[in-house]
Parts: sequence; structure tokens; C-alpha cells
Amino acid sequence: MSLSMKLHVTNHLNLKLYPQTSERSSYADAKTKIRTKAIYHRNQLISQAYKPTMHVSSSFSSSCPVKSSLIEPDGGALVDLVVPESERVKKTLEAEALPKLRLTKVDIEWVLVISEGWASPLRGFMRENEYLQSLHFSCLRMEDGSVVNMSLPIVLAIDDETKERIGSSPNVGMVGPNGDLVGILQSIEIYKHNKEERIARTWGTTAPGLPYVEEVITHAGNWLVGGDLEVLSPIKYNDGLDHYRLSPQQLRKEFDRRQADAVFAFQLRNPVHNGHALLMNDTRRRLLEMGYKNPILLLHPLGGFTKSDDVPLDVRMEQHGKVLEDGVLDPETTIVAIFPSPMHYAGPTEVQWHAKARINAGANFYIVGRDPAGMGHPTEKRDLYDPDHGKKVLSMALGLEKLNILPFRVAAYDTVDKKMAFFDPSRAKDFLFISGTKMRTYARNGENPPDGFMCPRGWKVLVKYYESLQAEEASLQQAVLTT
Amino acid sequence: MSLSMKLHVTNHLNLKLYPQTSERSSYADAKTKIRTKAIYHRNQLISQAYKPTMHVSSSFSSSCPVKSSLIEPDGGALVDLVVPESERVKKTLEAEALPKLRLTKVDIEWVLVISEGWASPLRGFMRENEYLQSLHFSCLRMEDGSVVNMSLPIVLAIDDETKERIGSSPNVGMVGPNGDLVGILQSIEIYKHNKEERIARTWGTTAPGLPYVEEVITHAGNWLVGGDLEVLSPIKYNDGLDHYRLSPQQLRKEFDRRQADAVFAFQLRNPVHNGHALLMNDTRRRLLEMGYKNPILLLHPLGGFTKSDDVPLDVRMEQHGKVLEDGVLDPETTIVAIFPSPMHYAGPTEVQWHAKARINAGANFYIVGRDPAGMGHPTEKRDLYDPDHGKKVLSMALGLEKLNILPFRVAAYDTVDKKMAFFDPSRAKDFLFISGTKMRTYARNGENPPDGFMCPRGWKVLVKYYESLQAEEASLQQAVLTT
Repeated sequence: MSLSMKLHVTNHLNLKLYPQTSERSSYADAKTKIRTKAIYHRNQLISQAYKPTMHVSSSFSSSCPVKSSLIEPDGGALVDLVVPESERVKKTLEAEALPKLRLTKVDIEWVLVISEGWASPLRGFMRENEYLQSLHFSCLRMEDGSVVNMSLPIVLAIDDETKERIGSSPNVGMVGPNGDLVGILQSIEIYKHNKEERIARTWGTTAPGLPYVEEVITHAGNWLVGGDLEVLSPIKYNDGLDHYRLSPQQLRKEFDRRQADAVFAFQLRNPVHNGHALLMNDTRRRLLEMGYKNPILLLHPLGGFTKSDDVPLDVRMEQHGKVLEDGVLDPETTIVAIFPSPMHYAGPTEVQWHAKARINAGANFYIVGRDPAGMGHPTEKRDLYDPDHGKKVLSMALGLEKLNILPFRVAAYDTVDKKMAFFDPSRAKDFLFISGTKMRTYARNGENPPDGFMCPRGWKVLVKYYESLQAEEASLQQAVLTT
Repeated sequence: MSLSMKLHVTNHLNLKLYPQTSERSSYADAKTKIRTKAIYHRNQLISQAYKPTMHVSSSFSSSCPVKSSLIEPDGGALVDLVVPESERVKKTLEAEALPKLRLTKVDIEWVLVISEGWASPLRGFMRENEYLQSLHFSCLRMEDGSVVNMSLPIVLAIDDETKERIGSSPNVGMVGPNGDLVGILQSIEIYKHNKEERIARTWGTTAPGLPYVEEVITHAGNWLVGGDLEVLSPIKYNDGLDHYRLSPQQLRKEFDRRQADAVFAFQLRNPVHNGHALLMNDTRRRLLEMGYKNPILLLHPLGGFTKSDDVPLDVRMEQHGKVLEDGVLDPETTIVAIFPSPMHYAGPTEVQWHAKARINAGANFYIVGRDPAGMGHPTEKRDLYDPDHGKKVLSMALGLEKLNILPFRVAAYDTVDKKMAFFDPSRAKDFLFISGTKMRTYARNGENPPDGFMCPRGWKVLVKYYESLQAEEASLQQAVLTT
């Protein structure tokens, strides 16, 4: 079944009807471009097309092909900064002739993010004008006066030596951590990297111990370089997970292919427990009640930099797979893909980025929970952010007006019913809150969480990971002792 | 000459024509409400009406009365939160019966600021919703979807004891530092005062030694209380300067009275030197060149909290008076009034507040210079802010679109021409930069600045102040020695 078929649809379907333009290719195009491989899990692909139960009526007749792209990307069109195949040789020669700057692992994550359009309409690392708008207003003003959200400064730091090497060259070539040529930054602007101010305004603290700060900012250079990005070829990690790295364009096409009439995104960086699942399934139920016929869940784990005690991406992807195999989430209405951004742990500021990027990926509903992108304060015994501020700031954020924010009630383990359930304050003592930290502690200590907390096969993935971690640590200790 | 007269005006006058509404009272009303006392200087009032040289033509005929209110207050109407005379007794009784909170000296400054409408459309100390918008977006979203600038959180801190005393009362009475009943805060909301986050997001640093932080925040309570403000009677300081404290409404009426067709505001917290004067006079020249017929300068020294080594308000006002008496600025086209806000020294964040408040006061042009609201970093040997960021951020600020921002070239002392002049980079070595700090150091040490830096009578005011300060210090030391 193709989305380019002509349908007579009634308005209540909530499908937006677009005229066919060159930017919005039909399913026929999509089929030739998307590899039909595992979307939600490599072992679990059910590629049957969704069988819609649309109420087809002749009361509203349209000759437009149905396009279920549900939400406009920021700036109107998705940014795609990968050099077309035909120009690759020419551009590579051009890049080779330019002064070079060396990218870190996290810089590469941002190159991927920008080049695929997650940060649309941003077309490269920020120049000072964009950087200041991001720091002060968490958004960018477009030429037509409209505003798009942009809460995290997406910037590239260079040191004095690199700045000198670039000199007055308007363009610069970018080299990956392994020396491979990655792309070009055009019409560059170099400006001061005031780390203290960047950190204070982004995190609302300058306390030592913020993971992204320690990893990315503290030892970075004192200059930022902004410019228009061109990437010589799509960024691949070759870690066995690239097929999960669907670009915003690929996701939009997949939503179209499934004829989604609502897409709700769930951002996470932890294994999926039954509380998450309850929430996602409940959201689907609510969307159906609202009249949507085919809401699709985008289960969208963050795949870039995370702090060292978070569960690694490959383990999480394996765990998510079990959750789908065990039917805790419905594979038919779920897409699992990787969100390639690094994690800032910047709470209310970062949750805006998480939501904004999902607009570009085609999600028109965004689920937000308690303390999104939060963590413990690095030097004080408290949460770094008020756990309610994330959803409050998200609901008031500039440039996110077109996105439906779905705040959810807190789920916790109900010790009476022995399952994850929405917290009922009238019998608070019956509930056990199991944070990500607590969950990881259980698994690390080989303890089992309460029955019904997570599907058993998903839990096993975690236990196996922590066992291997401990074996590794033990053998390292052994190696130290025997030398 | 009355502004309510009917004129045939040509469009190029740049006068905005408004229908007469109840909010915009005619000059006839204004005359009865404004006391005709010194506006720019108490010894210097020239109350002659401005004699317009309007080009009157019949080509565009309007029967509307001319209203030269040049810019709409934020939110459409000026906030005025002083209880009408007729309700004062009733409201005082009401306030007396409420639980009380005690205001500090700086809190009172904010009560004055809010009650007179400088922060329009804000109607009281911020509730959490407004606080978060201010911290994250430097603006507030109005009900109609429009946005007004609001870069500084205008909040009221209370301690645990006060919070307990208030209990669940929806309203609270406010008592001044001397125990006098000041007003009521209605429909209050109490929320956490995360000082670290507030400081980091407002100043872009948490370094110790920020003057406003040390004076107002560090020792403040751990809660903020927001609500709608009602002030029992206009706030007066009885310091001999109240006649300079013109409210936004009074300023607007005065601009109308003078038939200003442009008002350009100059914010300062230092004595006026000839570089400032050059700039203000040059701005007027530029506005005349642009076709304005009667640009009025609002010389608007900040009158609230300033750091201890700034020149005190009364001395500054005396100095400004000399500058006008000596004709360095033209009394006919200048209004000197006090901007009652306390100073944050928060650079690019604060300059937005300075500009926004002047919109409410009726200024449609705002002059911004190098490093506005900046200071040295409290713990590092550098400016706290990039000196260019203030004007950059101001030019991109959300909610300030209707204000004309006038960035200016830097003025410095030209050692060849022996006068303040616009800095000429082609002969940089001829120029001497005399900062506020350097100016104060000259005066404190009894040294004279170079000829032509400041009008001699203005300079004398400063010298006299620092002499009295030293005499005071000496007598204090003497007192310590003799005890």
C-alpha cells in the first residue's frame, strides 16, 4: 500500500494534506532509498504494512496524494548537508587543500546531528550571532521574524594553535579523530569561547563534575569556530548499530509508510522498564481516545556521549529489543531508532533540544516526565534541577508551539499489585520509586528488582552486561597484581 | 499650546496618530495631574513650551488629536498599581489584617519599579511561571501569543520563618524596612529560590563578588513569593530627589507636552563626561538628519542599588545639573529623571531590562555603548562580559523589536585635539580611554582629568564628594584610634 495513492479522506483523520513538492518525495521514492531492514529491532522486523481502518468518505474529495508528514521541520525544510555523490570527488579535493582542524569524538556526533537536519534550520556549527541567541533566548530568530527553538549551543571549539593555522582562510577542512577527512566548514567565523559563561547559562551552575563539561568543554580550546557545514559522506560508526541510526528524513518516510496519523516520541538513555512501557502504552491509548487511528511510537534512545555510569548504547539497544520481542511494547506500532546527539545532562535547557530535534524527525507529540535530562547535583546532595522544571520550561518554550507536549504522571512500583503503576498519592506508602541509578545498582550487585519491574529477558541483558563489566574489572586487577 | 488641538499634519513628521482613548488622556488632563516642577534639574527648569517648526500641510488631513506617545508600553497599557486615594483606608485595613512579610531596601526599589509600570505588563513579583520564562528566554509570552522582553527575574525572597507565618494565606501584607505598611501581594505563590541557578543564568557566572548577589541574594531566604502587587501609596524616598523620580506615565506626558517626535534614552550610573555628551549631542544631530523635528533626550541615571564604589545618586544628580547649567547638554531638549531600578551589573542580560523599561517610559530610541551594565570579573583580571555582547544581544533580543537601538562608536580623550572625540582607530595612540573606574580614581586622588574631559563645575562636584568621603574616613579612623 502506497502513500502516493489517491484517497478520498475526511477531515477528522487529522492527516495533513500537502501538495506534492520536490522536497516531499512520495513513497515510491522512499522505497528505493530506505533499506528495508530492522527498524525497531534487527531480529524483529515485521514489515507488513499497517492496515489502516480509515473512514473513507466521498464527502471531502481531494486529488492530492496523502502525505502524513505530521509536523513541519523547523525552518520549513529539513537540512541535509551531505555532499551529493556526484560532487564528492571535487569536494574532497577542495577539503584536502584547506587548512585543517581536528574533530573529537563528540564533535563528530554533532557533525552527524547537524548534517542530517536534527538541528534544522541550523546549517553548521554556530557563529557568534546564533551562539548568543541560543545562550540568551534558547531560540533563533529566522529572517521572516519567526522563531525556532535552539536551547543548546552547538559549537565547535579550537585551540590557539589551530586558530593560527587557519589564519584568514574563509573555509576549513575537518578531519576526524582517526585522521579521515570528514567535511568542510565554509565562511567561518572565529570568536571567543568563554567557557564559564557558556556553562553557567547552559547548566545553571558552574559546579565541577558536570559530565559533558568535563568531557567536552574544560579541556577544549579558547575559541569557537562557526560556519556552514558540508559533510563528504554520511557519518557511519560501523558498530553494528548504524541501521538503527535513521535520519530525520528516513524516519519521516517510515512514518509516512506506516500511515501514522500521530507520532509520539519517547527520549531515553536508560533501559526500558515496565513503568516506561506503561506510560508509552497509556499514551497510545490516550491518542486513540483523542480520535487518532494510527499513533506510532518513536522509541528514541540517545546514542551519543553519555556519562560513564550510564548503560552503554549497545546494551541498551539489545535490552530494548527484548522489550519488543516480549511484547511489552507492540512492534507493529513502535519504531526504535537511535537519536545521535550527545547528552548534556542540562535538564530544562536540554529537554528543549530533545523535543526540538524530534519535531525535525516528524514527531508531533513529545512525552516528558519527571526531571528530564536531569541528574544529581555534582557537589551537593540534591537534584541539580527542580524535577518539575523540565516539563514546565518545555511547555513555555519559544519555538515549540507546534509540538504537542504530553507531560505524564509518575509511574512507580506498586508493592501491593506487584507491578509498575501510576503513582497514587492517596496510598503513597505502597509505592517504590526505582530511579535509573537504583536500577543500575540492582543489576550491578546481581540483585533482582521486584517482580514486574522489567521483562525478565530485558533484565538479563543488564545483568549480563554488569557481570561482564565485573569480570573485566577483576581481570584488570589481576593483571595489575601479576605485573 | 495643547496637544489636543487638531492639526493637519503630513506623514513625514513621524508622529503616530492615535484615536483618543480613555487610557491616553489629553494634555488638558495632563496639565492637572503633573506638577510643573523641575524636570531635568531643579534650578534649571525652562518650562516654555517647545515651539514646533512643523511643516503643516493640507495634503493629509486628520481630525484626530495629535498624540506624540511614540511607542506602545509593553502589553499595550502602562501598569499602575498604586491604590486609588478613595480605596486607601479600606486597603490599609485589609493589609493590616494579613500575615506580613518584611521588605528590604532593594525590595522597596522593586516595589516602586513594578508599581509605576517600568516592568509593564508585570503586575507584581514574579510567580514561578514568569520566573522560569525570564531565566530561560529573557521574555514573557502574553496571552495573545506575543512576547515582551523580561530579562531580569524580578522576584521577592522570603525565609523559612516568613513562609511558615504566611501559611496558606492567599494574600500577604508587605512592611517596609522601617515597619511602615507598604502594600499587599495578592494570590501569592511560594516556590523554591534556587540561588545558584538564578545567579548562573542571570550573570553567566557564579564567581563570588557580584555586587547585587552579595547585597541581595546570598543572604536572602530560600523561597520566592510571587503575586499581584497593590501599593497603598506612591513610594517616596524623601531624600530631596523625589521630584526627579518621574514615573513612566509622567515621562510620557512630559514628552507629549514637549511635542517630542523622537525620544532617545541614555542610561547611566556614572557622572556625565564630555564623551557621553558628545554622543548624546551626536545622536540628536543624527535624529534631526533622519527627519525628526524635535528629538528629546531622556538622560536617565539609575537611582537604585549601585555598588559601593560607584558615585552616589545625590552627587551624580548634582553633577548632571552642572552639565546642563554649563550648556554641555541643551536643557531645552533634555529631560533628566531618575530610573528607580537597582543595578545588577549583569551585562547583556541587564541591558535588555534597561532598554525595556525605557520603552515603557515612552522612549523609542535607546543608546547602547561599549560593555553596558558590565564590570570587571570579580575574581579574574578581565571584563566579566565581552564588551561587544551587550549591544549584540540587545539587537537580537526578543520583545524589543519596536525599539530603535542606537549603538554608538566609542568616545575617548583625543590627546591631540584635547577633547573627547569619537575614537579613530587610524591614530589609536592619540586616544586615552578613561573608564568610570579611572574617572573615579582621578577624583578620589584629587587629580585633575585632562582638560576637556568634563565641564569644570561638574568635575568640582566629584572632587568635593571624594574630599568629604576622605574627611569622613579620617574622622572614623580618628574615632577608632581614640577609643
